[in-house]
Formats: sequence, C-alpha cells, structure tokens
Amino acid sequence: MPEHITPVPLDKSYRLLNHGPTVLVSAAHGGVSNVMAAAWACVLDYGQSPKVTVVLDKATYTRELLMASGEFALQLPTQAMVSLTVGVGSDSAKEVPDKLVKHGVQLFTVPGSGVPLVAGCVGWLVCKWVPEPHNEQTYDLFIGEVVSAWADKRVFRDGRWHFESAPDELRTIHHVAGGQFYATGESVQA
Amino acid sequence: MPEHITPVPLDKSYRLLNHGPTVLVSAAHGGVSNVMAAAWACVLDYGQSPKVTVVLDKATYTRELLMASGEFALQLPTQAMVSLTVGVGSDSAKEVPDKLVKHGVQLFTVPGSGVPLVAGCVGWLVCKWVPEPHNEQTYDLFIGEVVSAWADKRVFRDGRWHFESAPDELRTIHHVAGGQFYATGESVQA
Repeated sequence: MPEHITPVPLDKSYRLLNHGPTVLVSAAHGGVSNVMAAAWACVLDYGQSPKVTVVLDKATYTRELLMASGEFALQLPTQAMVSLTVGVGSDSAKEVPDKLVKHGVQLFTVPGSGVPLVAGCVGWLVCKWVPEPHNEQTYDLFIGEVVSAWADKRVFRDGRWHFESAPDELRTIHHVAGGQFYATGESVQA
Repeated sequence: MPEHITPVPLDKSYRLLNHGPTVLVSAAHGGVSNVMAAAWACVLDYGQSPKVTVVLDKATYTRELLMASGEFALQLPTQAMVSLTVGVGSDSAKEVPDKLVKHGVQLFTVPGSGVPLVAGCVGWLVCKWVPEPHNEQTYDLFIGEVVSAWADKRVFRDGRWHFESAPDELRTIHHVAGGQFYATGESVQA
C-alpha cells in the first residue's frame, strides 16, 4: 500500500468523483492487468450503495478484463500524471502489450480486492460491475457499485478535498481534448 | 439571445462538458419552465450524434417537464453563479413556485428550440430526450442527444476553452458537496 493512503467511508466516496475529474480505469483477469483513461465517468448514486458510470469503448482491453472478472476501479490521476494519463489512454494493450511498463504505471492492491490500483493517484473507487447488457451494447455505458474507496490523505481527508494545502502537482485533472487538461482550481463557496 | 453567444459545431460540443463541470438542467412544458442543478452529468458519445447522461431524481419538477416535452438543456454556470446554482439546486419548484425569480434566473431561447436556456452560463447543450425507461426508473439516469450547442465566445471558441484570457468569474465550476465548488483551474498540456 502506498504511503498516505487512507480509507474513505462509502457514504463519502461520491465526493472523490463529484467534481468531474478524468479517471484511470483498471481491471485484471487471469493474471493480466490493464489501465486506460476515461473522461466520461460520473457519479450515479450515493449513500451506502454508491454507484458510478463509465463509458468503455468495445475496442478496449480493460472492458474485456472488467467483464471477465466482474470488477474494476476508477482512480484519479494528478497534474503530475498527465503524460501517464494520455499514454495509457492512447496506447491499447492489444497493440502495445507492455503499455503499463512503457508509461511507468505501478500497481498495488488494497485489502478485500484483487483489482489493480494505480500508484500516484489521489483517489480510488473499487467497484463491482453491475451488468446492464443493453447499456453496454448500445452506449458502451458501464455501471459499477463502489465496494471500497481510498484517498491520499494529503489532499482528501475528513470527507472533503484539501487541494489548497498541498502541492499543485497533487491536484486532479479534467481532460478537454488532445492532451489538454484543466487542473482542479480554486475553492469557491456559495 | 445574449451578447457573446456563438454556435458550437455538434462534433465539438462534447468539449463543453468533457472537463466535468456542474451543470444546470432546464426544461419547459405547457408554458412552465424550470431549472435545477446537477453535478452528475457526463458525455456519453461524440461525433455527429453527441449524447449526454444526467441523473434526475424522481422528486424533481424538471424531470417531469423533460418527460412531458421530450427535450431539455444542460448548461454550464460560472464562478459568478455559485449562489444561483446552489439556490436552484436546493429549492424545488413544487414548494417554491417562484424559485427562478427568487434566484435571479433569466431565460432565453435559441433558434430551432423552445427549451429555456439560462443567461450568464458559458455553454449550452440543447438535447432531445432519448427514452430509456429501465435506466430512468432504476437509476434516475436520463440520456439526451445533443441537437444544438452554444457557447460564450469570450471563453469557448475555435473548438476549445480559453479561460486563461478571460475574467476568473467566467470559469466553470465543479461541485463537491454542501455548496463547496472548485473552479476550473490552470491549463495543463501533456
């Protein structure tokens, strides 16, 4: 387990994703792990059975691993990880079998799950796949129920983000297009 | 039509939502308009038939107007509009019939659609409802096909955001919880 990691209560886990950051999607099956990038991930429900959606193209290997294993993770890369994010989002493991090594992706697991998680991220949502064949076939839309959540306590603790008191390189990122992102910016209170 | 507004080509419209901002959802039916806030909105597809998802609780009046009229809009409020956003997200038109007036919401329409749009936002996605009864009943998840898109050209032009060269008050916002948002921050290129 990486230093600084701390569990996040399930009923607060939606706050990791609520501000709409770009995520890395990871899954494993039969001893093979993969990681891809996705900007189209979103909270679907909160409370004690929090859920997420994520769009996974039929061409992706991660989708195959997810469907074979029944689990996956969404995790939040940082401003320091934009190149890694674009790298794993551009290369397919079907054509670049060593893509994780190529882009410097280091994996770890947390208690209770075999899903590979990406080190260096600042939030992790470990999810159980909720099969919805029509959504998956028609829209490439997948649903997951969050079964455990974790965060880097330097930036997320007591149920909220604390980007202000940490280095900017730990800020989450929001992809627009073509490798251009916006970092999560200043806190604004209504 | 507000000053500064410009059409966005459909194949670039996903870029308005790709960075995961909080949106306002609007719809109208029978001469009644309503607006609510939603952090759980996401791109579902791009290209020439772009689609979006948005989660709309069964208690919301906007959901009823959407289902009665078959159309709705997602639009991006700014840092200057955090109080309006929290206001229309907290008050229900079922209990506060004059909520739009109370929170200073001004509406306009664009050519080809009767959907009310909120002035002061910096991006607008006019959508046709794509009915999916199972998703709506089970997950409160709605799908829309974007039929026209618009932006404030001070911050979005030539198919990309230009927050850097505009006042911070025009930045989009990302809700975490309890009225706390993060503004869209610095541009980062991989």
